[in-house]
Formats: sequence, structure tokens, C-alpha cells
Amino acid sequence: MQSLWEIKLEKYDNSQNRKYETIYTLANGYRGFRGVQDFSKKGECGNFIAGVFDKNDAQVTEIVNCQNPLVLNIYFDNEQLDIDNSEVLEFERNLNMKEGILYSKYLLKLQSRRIVKVEVEKFVSRNNVHRWAAKYKITPVNFSSKMFIENIIDGTVTNSSLDPFLKTKHFDVEDVLDLKPGIALKSITIDKKIRVIEATTLFSENPSGNIFIRRKFGRFGEVAREVYESFVKEGKEYIVVKYGVTYTSRDTKESIISKAKDELFNFIREGYESEKDKHIEYWNNLWDKIDIEIKGDDAAQRGLRFNLFQLSSSAYDGDDKVSIAAKALHGEGYKGHVFWDTEIFMLPFFIYTNPKVARALLMYRYNTLDGARKNAELNGYKGAQFPWESADDGIEVTPKWGFDYDGNPVRIWTGDEEFHINADIAFAIWEYYRATMDKDFLDNYGIEIILDTAKFWNSRLEYNKEKNRYEINKVIGPDEFHEHVNNNVYTNYLARWNMIKALQLVEMLKIENPVLLNKLCNKLGLSNADFEEWEKKIELIYIPMAKDGKLIEQFEGYFNLLDIPITEYDENGMPKWPDLKGYKLHDTQLIKQPDVVMLMLLLGDEFDLESKKINYEYYEKRTMHKSSLSPSMYSIMGLVVGDTHNSYKYFMKTIYTDLEDNQGNAALGLHAASTGGSWQSAVFGFGGLSIDHDEIPNINPWTPENWEELSYKINWRGSIIKVTVKQDKVEIFSDMDNEVKVYGNKYSIKQNQLLEVSRI
Amino acid sequence: MQSLWEIKLEKYDNSQNRKYETIYTLANGYRGFRGVQDFSKKGECGNFIAGVFDKNDAQVTEIVNCQNPLVLNIYFDNEQLDIDNSEVLEFERNLNMKEGILYSKYLLKLQSRRIVKVEVEKFVSRNNVHRWAAKYKITPVNFSSKMFIENIIDGTVTNSSLDPFLKTKHFDVEDVLDLKPGIALKSITIDKKIRVIEATTLFSENPSGNIFIRRKFGRFGEVAREVYESFVKEGKEYIVVKYGVTYTSRDTKESIISKAKDELFNFIREGYESEKDKHIEYWNNLWDKIDIEIKGDDAAQRGLRFNLFQLSSSAYDGDDKVSIAAKALHGEGYKGHVFWDTEIFMLPFFIYTNPKVARALLMYRYNTLDGARKNAELNGYKGAQFPWESADDGIEVTPKWGFDYDGNPVRIWTGDEEFHINADIAFAIWEYYRATMDKDFLDNYGIEIILDTAKFWNSRLEYNKEKNRYEINKVIGPDEFHEHVNNNVYTNYLARWNMIKALQLVEMLKIENPVLLNKLCNKLGLSNADFEEWEKKIELIYIPMAKDGKLIEQFEGYFNLLDIPITEYDENGMPKWPDLKGYKLHDTQLIKQPDVVMLMLLLGDEFDLESKKINYEYYEKRTMHKSSLSPSMYSIMGLVVGDTHNSYKYFMKTIYTDLEDNQGNAALGLHAASTGGSWQSAVFGFGGLSIDHDEIPNINPWTPENWEELSYKINWRGSIIKVTVKQDKVEIFSDMDNEVKVYGNKYSIKQNQLLEVSRI
Repeated sequence: MQSLWEIKLEKYDNSQNRKYETIYTLANGYRGFRGVQDFSKKGECGNFIAGVFDKNDAQVTEIVNCQNPLVLNIYFDNEQLDIDNSEVLEFERNLNMKEGILYSKYLLKLQSRRIVKVEVEKFVSRNNVHRWAAKYKITPVNFSSKMFIENIIDGTVTNSSLDPFLKTKHFDVEDVLDLKPGIALKSITIDKKIRVIEATTLFSENPSGNIFIRRKFGRFGEVAREVYESFVKEGKEYIVVKYGVTYTSRDTKESIISKAKDELFNFIREGYESEKDKHIEYWNNLWDKIDIEIKGDDAAQRGLRFNLFQLSSSAYDGDDKVSIAAKALHGEGYKGHVFWDTEIFMLPFFIYTNPKVARALLMYRYNTLDGARKNAELNGYKGAQFPWESADDGIEVTPKWGFDYDGNPVRIWTGDEEFHINADIAFAIWEYYRATMDKDFLDNYGIEIILDTAKFWNSRLEYNKEKNRYEINKVIGPDEFHEHVNNNVYTNYLARWNMIKALQLVEMLKIENPVLLNKLCNKLGLSNADFEEWEKKIELIYIPMAKDGKLIEQFEGYFNLLDIPITEYDENGMPKWPDLKGYKLHDTQLIKQPDVVMLMLLLGDEFDLESKKINYEYYEKRTMHKSSLSPSMYSIMGLVVGDTHNSYKYFMKTIYTDLEDNQGNAALGLHAASTGGSWQSAVFGFGGLSIDHDEIPNINPWTPENWEELSYKINWRGSIIKVTVKQDKVEIFSDMDNEVKVYGNKYSIKQNQLLEVSRI
Repeated sequence: MQSLWEIKLEKYDNSQNRKYETIYTLANGYRGFRGVQDFSKKGECGNFIAGVFDKNDAQVTEIVNCQNPLVLNIYFDNEQLDIDNSEVLEFERNLNMKEGILYSKYLLKLQSRRIVKVEVEKFVSRNNVHRWAAKYKITPVNFSSKMFIENIIDGTVTNSSLDPFLKTKHFDVEDVLDLKPGIALKSITIDKKIRVIEATTLFSENPSGNIFIRRKFGRFGEVAREVYESFVKEGKEYIVVKYGVTYTSRDTKESIISKAKDELFNFIREGYESEKDKHIEYWNNLWDKIDIEIKGDDAAQRGLRFNLFQLSSSAYDGDDKVSIAAKALHGEGYKGHVFWDTEIFMLPFFIYTNPKVARALLMYRYNTLDGARKNAELNGYKGAQFPWESADDGIEVTPKWGFDYDGNPVRIWTGDEEFHINADIAFAIWEYYRATMDKDFLDNYGIEIILDTAKFWNSRLEYNKEKNRYEINKVIGPDEFHEHVNNNVYTNYLARWNMIKALQLVEMLKIENPVLLNKLCNKLGLSNADFEEWEKKIELIYIPMAKDGKLIEQFEGYFNLLDIPITEYDENGMPKWPDLKGYKLHDTQLIKQPDVVMLMLLLGDEFDLESKKINYEYYEKRTMHKSSLSPSMYSIMGLVVGDTHNSYKYFMKTIYTDLEDNQGNAALGLHAASTGGSWQSAVFGFGGLSIDHDEIPNINPWTPENWEELSYKINWRGSIIKVTVKQDKVEIFSDMDNEVKVYGNKYSIKQNQLLEVSRI
């Protein structure tokens, strides 16, 4: 039986290695190590350090797969311990999410019939993000022999290593160092000359002391290597600890070689167990903030925790020049680029559980504003145009071309047309501010972004003289099945929202802080004339609302497309492709993911329940969920409109996106948006949290029958509110006086006093 | 049915890859490529270029495993063609020895269920030793898809790659070049700064023309790589040719980069088929000289040809600063070092079939004389002391220390004590001269070696005052089970022979060429006083002859050792270890390989038949054959003394040493001495060739009943004599007038007239 804190794998199948590398990735926001299978050569190693990007001869700038310091090979005499050429007698990998430690256990019968037991524990420290370590317990079960342990930093790593054409190397090896004992390898990226050092050393920490009798260092081209010889006896257990530290020239102005040497020494002196304890303590504190308890549904509980674990592992508050990539620090998919996924899908989790991290993530957008301004300039617009895909500097890095199956080039339009990202970021800033009241952030960074995106939208609007309205044409909305569409509701609505919010903030500053307003106008080249222009245009922005006035047309002309609703579902309850009758996908009303419904989720307050119901029902039947961003959103809206059966299905689909690989591409990295969607589905969906016009948290929970209890905590304007949804009542507890609404009724809650409200 | 010219393998078992790498090595004397399994990562690549040695941090100077230019990977979409992860539907590797071409054929079912047929032919040109090539015919049997072909030169190659402690890299990568198309990689050895360049390019040579639609070059650290994209259709065959050239700074004073570029271009222009035709023609001519036909015994015929093929592949006449290593150009075993194996076991083959090569091999010793002189000086002797293990300069490179199973250091004494190598080389020079009458060699090089080794022996002799004799103590003879022995007969006898031969040559020069004698005396610091001293000492050199005056004691005290003759044999007819009763091996009379018998083979004329019989019978029962040098010699002596049953067994054992891996270490490289032993066993043994006092070829054949015919050719003093042993008669044919003896009777044979003598 797995505990509800564990993700356990008990069968070895090396064709699945790449998927489990993603699932068992250990990350701490600073960096991610893919969970490469010990003692196997099958798979794709990944050492991603947030912010280390490079282009070289790749199509676009991408996250660098850095040198791999995790290699540890064991030999008995000259026979290498190799799981793929052994009989696997026992196998277990077990991610303990409570502790943030990956435990593995192997009993292998080598080709020589030697039987070896190895237990491994590994962690990437959250106490000190530069540290990582692994402990190996090795038992020669039925033999005595020489044992060699090879400690390696592999500098031959490439990106796209499994793609014969795209494969590329993003760094040169600048230094290979013998630390006597220990090894280090310093690399330098090709374009931006970012230096990365990995340093590692082995210690044999046995009750009887050191077991190493000879050591030899070697530089093999781009590989640093030290090998230790020892002699091991049948039935005895031997412990070897691998210590590691990582620094980059992004982290420090000091020499990263001496930094790494010193810190490796400090790490060894403090010891493995000490660091591990602090790391576990860190996770304990983190879980206290982020955990969502679901009693009575183990699959939901365990699966949800996996999402919270990996999403938390993908960010920290120590670097405000990085954000979370679509595949987080877990794989090369989408090249380490940041999308709207961060602001719209992941950010709410951080806003409500870990606002410091949320702020750091938004600061990344602030710190890439110059790139966004360059994008606008290049495209003939004004203000700041955030890139659809963002790397290190805010310049658009969406590839322009892809290839279809036959090798024919296919133009990718999202970087040219998926403008809504700009409003998404403005929206996220406001959502952050609303929950945290972080005035410092709003004044110094947030308003500037909202103003400059508003300026962008103002320049993007196209006047239709005939109809006396402002349009936004040739766009892609969240539903990417339809390109070059005109007046996508989601885009137009949020663009308008962005401009309105900008004007509201201007009005606020006029009263509260005219100096700041002056400063911003000065910096951004804005004046009252601009604000007046915006105000006029806002009124005339065209928002297509169609048919019966309730059912919204996703974009102009959408309803004229071939309508072939989904009628069949697969064994997982996911839609099957309807017969397209020879039509192209973009000529049908089938959509990839919510678009109108997405808008209604973001601005729930601006649409009545009937509208939501009508649109949910219409679009749900036409949504193919060909994005991992889709099911969680339908899950939440399903609960809003009362389609509870589908909600649970979509929730489970979301939390098992990677664990069950239900999008079929878990190997490429974490579905990070889906992890954020998991939290939203649990808290905004089942937990029923929303913030209304009055800026008061509303709690309207609904839980499946078998959920004995659902509980979560949120940060709300400096306080922590704990919500426990029991089968008969809702309990609310706050560490400060607060106002909440439960099922529409307002309650004042006192500090540390439990509020109980009966379920309806 | 395999032809008698083919070595065919029809079953794939990747645990055997390393063995077949040796068997399927393609070499041309200039270089050897181990026969690495196509599309597999299991094994140990080997690219050895004769004369390219380096020490770096290895124990001793060793042959460098150079960058590997043979890598060619095929991908369908992103799925790599990988034999170890495919279902092997059909498999064939077939070394065509007649042509010197390795043909392979694979039908593989990939994990995606794609079925792919690939046929490969590969050769290392004998027409132009710098050229090598491979042709791939690729058929996607049941699918159409993108195909990527990756052409790689791998500069990450190390020596001892499978030994975690000894693994070492002997070169840095100096240049990685894009030849557009084509790639090149230039390396430089660590110590001696020898530069090696490998250059290769791909051409798609299809009836319909080029199939490559995109190309991309990449440098990945120490790896040069170009990848080609194409689209292949179900059922169609696509041909890709890989051209390659190799140069080193040993070959030319020119820039090896421009040399390689030019020659690669020339090669392509002339074309694959043209080079292949010339290569085959070369082999046809070579076979005409070297082949031994055995009719009626297919296993013997095929096995023997394998030995002639690989021995011929190991040397050429184009470089007189290299010799043949114990493992030839076929593996890293014995570190590429040259032993007495060359002069005593392999050289007769070349003397009698390809004297130019024999001369080049002896020239290697001449060109390493300075090293040999340094060895003597270092050890307190005079003259030239050839090293027991020799690399590039004649300095002793035998490792001083090895390790036993428990990792304890064990002193290796052969480099200090196995002096007989000096007389072996002198002996070989004389044997070469006797057969070729190559006066130029003898005068300019050979005599100098014989004089300087005689000078060495003179300084090595120790006077035993008590017994008034000269002794050579603390030596190792050919039988290495016994170290630090005194007065080993083989050593003492040949040392005396060496000194006698030196004096004979001095006498000859006094008459024929006193100027040369003066010159040599001048150069070597010799005078008549020395020659007089030698003459006196020769009389007093102690040769232990013992017991009944016929049975010779291998060394002083040998007969006092524990005598436990071999009584049991394994299923292959090879001796089982007798019970040592707690004694150490060196305290018994068991020997590793012939020692006294070896002497009687080399100087057959100086021992009567009875002596030979008595010693053969005694020592054969005590010989464990723990060297591949052993069985062939017993096979020959067995025939001399009439033990024909054992002779055939030992002959078959010898010719199948590598093919059946009966020493268990074929993976480490060719048993080159054994290939030479195979020829000796066939020609000197069954073919009955010996040269007597009168310097006339004697033919005394004996053949097994099932051998319908045995025929071979020898070079004798500028003529070619063909001997055909039929069941009823011996036929002898010479292209010049000649004298021969058959069964003891002398015959004068006329040019191009057949001599027939009845079998007795």
C-alpha cells in the first residue's frame, strides 16, 4: 500500500524511462534534475537551471540542458552494474512528497550471476538551492569482489538529444577540475556566455570508516571523472554519499569556481544528514501552507499532492528574473519557454499559498518589459507586447516554422497572433494585488505593466468605420484550432478589461500618488490625451455576443462553421473525434480548449449563471481537450453550473495528466499548467472559492459523495484562512479577523475562532 | 553452406560482440578497425594505427585507440535503428576473405514495428591504405517515413574503456572540421604529439540520384557530426556510401588536413566501386602467394585461411618503423606491444610468402636499436638489449606491476628476465637471410643487430669460477611458469648460437667486405680482442644436458621439481590441471608452453631424431598450453617425431584459437602468434618443409588420411616453389631451376617443370 504521500513504481520497463524521468524530477525552483533511472543508459538526462538560456544553432532560444553531474557508475571487478542488462529481482522507486526525497531500491542479478542490492536516496535541497545529494547503500549479496565507483560530470550533454536533426549543444566546457577528492566541470553557454559549474565529490560514510583504497582522476574530453577502488565483502552493506553543488554566473559576481569549491566543502562539513533534515523541514513547512486534504478518496488525494509537489518544486522566491516554463524544470518540451500558462493556470496557486513566489513570477514579466517593448516596436505597435513564448529577455521566441509529418514546413502563427497574453498578464497582476494588497509591487511594477499593455492594446485596436467600432482582427484566441480569426471574444473582452483597469489605476493614482503617475507618464510617454483616447475607444470595442444574447460567439463567424458536436467518448470519458466529413478542422466548430468558458472563469463576476450554463453546455460538447489546460477549467465551470459528474471526471483527468500520461507526452516534461489547474479545480472548483465584487472571499463548495472531508488554506491579505468542507458543514478558521461569504451569506470571523456553516 | 572463403555468423548474441569485433577486424597493416557490430552500442570500438603510441597516465606506452570515424546511425523519424532493441528477424555477418570484404545483412523489427532491411559492405583498402569505405543498402520494408542518417567521427574514444580504473584517453581533439559535405576530426596524442586525422563523407548513390534533402553539421565537443534528412518509401532500397580517409603526421610532412581533404575528394571522384575492385584485385594477388589449399577437410581449409587472412592484414611493406603486435591491429590486448611472437611465430610466414613484409618487420628492430642500446646501458650491460615488450622506440615497456584478483600488486618479471628475445631476433634475421639471400639487408642492417646482440650476450654471461663455465642466471625462458631460473637451455643455447653467428659473419666480412667490418667495429665499439674473447667464452657457455644425455633439463634444477605429469584431458583434448597437492605452480615441472622443444624446432638440424622424440614425449606430458603459442609448435614437433594424432588436434586447436575462442580472450585482439603458428604447422608440419645444413629446402610431408591434397607456395631465394602433396605423390614446381630434397633424396628441378615423387 502506498501512503498518500508517495508515488511508487514497482515494475521496471525501460521503454517508460523517459516518462518517469518527468514524474520523478527533483526540482527546487532554482533548478530541476530529471529523474533519470539509476544504472541505466536508456532515457534523456535533464539538468535545467532556471534562467540559463541559449540559442546557438537551435531554431530559437531555449533552456539549456546543462552538464550532467549525477552520473555514478558502479563496477564489480570490471562488470558494470547495469539495470538493463540485469535480471531485475526487486525494483522500487518511491517519491516521498512529504519529504521531497526520491527513494529507490534495486535487487539486480548481473550477467555474471552476481546479485547486488542497491538503495538510493536523492534530493535537491530546498534549504540551499545550490545543493543536491544522493546516498547509495550497496550490498554485494552473494559475492565478494573489487568494487569501482565512478563519479562523473558529463559535459557532452546536448539539447534535443533524441532528435537526430535538432540535436544541438548549448555550451562549451571551459574547465575540468580535479578537486582531490572531488571533481568539477565549468561550462559556458555559446551565446550569452553564462557560466555554470557543477562540483561533486564522493564520501564513503560507513560505520567502519572509509572504504576507498585508491582514487584516480581523469579528464576525458568533456567529461570529468574520478574513480574509486574498494574491496567489498559478501553480505555487507557499503554506504557512499555523493555531494553536489551548482553555481552559475547568474548567481554571483564572485568566481564560481571558488564559490563551488568552498560550498562543496561546507556541505561536506555540515554533512548529508544535516542538509537532508533541513530540506525535509522546509518541505514540512511548505506542505503546511499548500496541502489540500481530501479524505475518503485516496486516488484524488495522492494525485492532487503530486501536482502541488511538482508545481511547488518549479518555483521559489529567490530569483525574480525567471518564471515557470510550460514544462517547468522537468523537460525540454516547449524549450523552457514561458506562456500564459504561468499567469492564468499556475499563478493562483502561488497567490493564495505562497505570495512571495507569486510576486517573483510577476517580477519576471516586469524584468522582461524591455523585450516586450521591442516586440511592440518591431510589430508596429506601441507600449509593451509580451511574447507568446518567452525565454530570458521578453523577446518573442515562438518558432516561426514547424514541420509536419512529411517534413514539409508549417508556419506557426501563435507568436504573431496570440495577443491575449498581454491582457492575461495584466489580469494576473490585478488578481495578485487583490489577494495580497501588495501596494509596493503594484506601485513600483504592476501599474507600469498594466499601463504599458493598455497602451499596446490601444495601438492594436482597428477602427471599423462602417460599423463604428474597434476590432481586433487576425488573432488566435485560447482555442488554437482557429487561426487568423476576427474579434475573438476572449481577446477583445480582456483587452477592454486591461484598458479599463489601466484607467482605473490612473484615476486612483491621480488621487493617491500623482507623483508616481507623473513619473510613469514620463517614462511611458503617456498623457491625459492618451487616457481620454482610451476611454473613448473602450466604449467602442466590439464584443461579439450573438444568437439569443446569451450564447456568445467565440469569434466573428464561428457559428457559421460546420457544427459537428461530439457524441462519442473513449473509455476514459474523453471525446472521440467526430467524423469531419472531409472538412478541415478549422472549418468546424470543434475547439481545442475553453475560450468563451475561459473568459467566464476569469471574470466570473461579469457573467450571470444562465450565461455560464448556456455557454458551458454549448462549448463543452465541442471541446476536444487537446490541451492539458482544458479539463481543469471545465471541471471548475462544471461545478459552477452544476454539471458535477463531468467535474469529477475532468478533475481526475487533470491531476493524473502526468502520472497516467493521458496526453501521451509526459516524457517531454511536466504539464505545469495542469498542476496549477489541479489546484484551481480543487480550491476554486470543489472548494468553491471565488472573490466577488466586494472583494470578499466566497466559499461555495461542492464535493463528491465519497469525499469525507476537503480542506485547504489560503492567504488572504496577510491572513491565513483555513477552509474545511465536511459532509455536513463548512468550517472556516482564520488567524486574523476577516469577512467571508459562505453560500452567499456574509460572516465576520474572529481571529482563531472557528466558523461553522451547515452544508446546503 | 559457407564457402571455404567465408567466415559467417548467423545468430546475434550481443554478449559475444567483443569476440566478433576481433574476428571481423578489417586491417591493412597501416591500420585496423575492430569489427564493431553495426547499429549496436555494445562492445569496444577499436581504431588502431600502426606506430601511433602514447603513454599519458597509462602504466606504460601503449597503442592508441584513435577517434572512431565508423559511426553511422540511421533514424526513421526519431526512432534510432538499434539492433539491441529490435527483434532480429534475419542476421548475417560474413567475412569474405577472398575479397577482404565484410558483408552484413540485417532484417530488424523496431519497437515501433517498423521492419527495416539493411545490407552493409565494408572494406579497409589494401590498394591505398589510407582509404576505407562502407556501403549501406537500406530498405524500409513495411513503412514510409523520414530517414535521418548521422555520420559521426567520435573523438571521445579511450583506451581500456571497459576497465573503470585503467581507462585513459591518449589524445586531445585539435580540430573538428565541416567539409561541407563531409566531416573531419584531427587529434593529437598527449605525449608524442602525433596528429591523426579522420575524414569521412556520405554519398547517396542511387539510380535516381541524391536522396538527401537537408544537411546539418554539428560539433558536439569531441564529436564531429553531420546529419542528412531524406524521405524513404515503403519497399524501396536506398544506397548510402560512406567514404573515409585517414592520415597521421607519421605519414607525411604536409598538412594532414589538406592531405585528408584532397584524398577524400580523390576517393569520391574515383568512386567506391573502383576502389573496391582494386582492393579485391590486391587480395587476389596476395592469395596467389599465401594460400594453402587443403582439399578434403573444410574445417581445416576455412580455419587456416582465416589465420592467413588476418596475419596478412596485420602487416604491409610500407612502414619499416612498425611491427606486428601480439594482438596485431585487432585489439588493445598487450597494449599493442611487440614480442618475440613476431620474429619466431609470425615472421616465417612472411619470409616464405612475402619477403618484403618480412624485411620491413625486421627493419622495425633495426630502427629501434637505439632503444635497445639504452636498455642495455640502463641494466648495466653492453650492446643492444631488445625489450621483452616493444612499442615505438625499442625502450622496454613491459609493465613492472600487475594486480592479482584481490587487488594486490604482483611484480611482473618478464621485462627484467626474459632475455631470449635478443637471440630470437638474431635468429630471425638469419632465417630471413637464408631464405632470401637479401645481402643488402644483411650488410646494412642485419649484421649490425647480430653483432650488437652478441655483444649484449657477452656482457650478460656470468663466469662460474668453481665450475669454470659461463652461465646465464636469473632468467625466464619461453616457459613463463618458472621465473628467476638459472641456465635455461633455450636461452643459453640461443645466446651461444647468436655469438657463434656473429663470429661467422665477422669471418665472412673479413674476406668479403673488410671495409664494412671496420665501419661496424667503429660504430659498435668492437675489435678483434672482443671477437677473441667471444670465441673463448662460447666454448665455456654451460648448456645443461642431463639424465641419460638425451633428455634435456629445461633449466638447472628443473628435474628436482615436483613431477606431476598431466593425465586427464578435457572434451577438446586439452590438458586438465593435475592436482598440485598444495604446491605452487613454479615448484612443479608443469610448463606453460614448449621450451626445450621450442629450441629443437628452431635449430632442428642440431638435434637428432631420438633426442627430439624423448624430449617431445617428456615435455608434452607436462605442458599446459597456457599460451596460444604452444599447440602449433607441438603440432610440428609431433609430426617430426611421428605423433600424428596429436599433431592434427594441436593444428586444429591453433587455427581455431580465435574463431572458437579457445583461449577465452579473443575479445582482446587477434592471437597473432597463433596465426603464424598456423602457417608453420601447415607448411613446416604437414607440408614437411625444413631447411637443412646444406641450405636446401627439404620436403617431408605427412597429411591426415582425409586430406586429399595439401598445397602451398614458398619463396626461396628469388624463386617460387609450389608444393602439392597428393595422397600418392608429392608434386614440386618451381619458376626457376632449384634443388630440393624430398624424403631425404635430392632432386634438381628445372624451371617450370613438374617434379613428382611418390609418397612414402
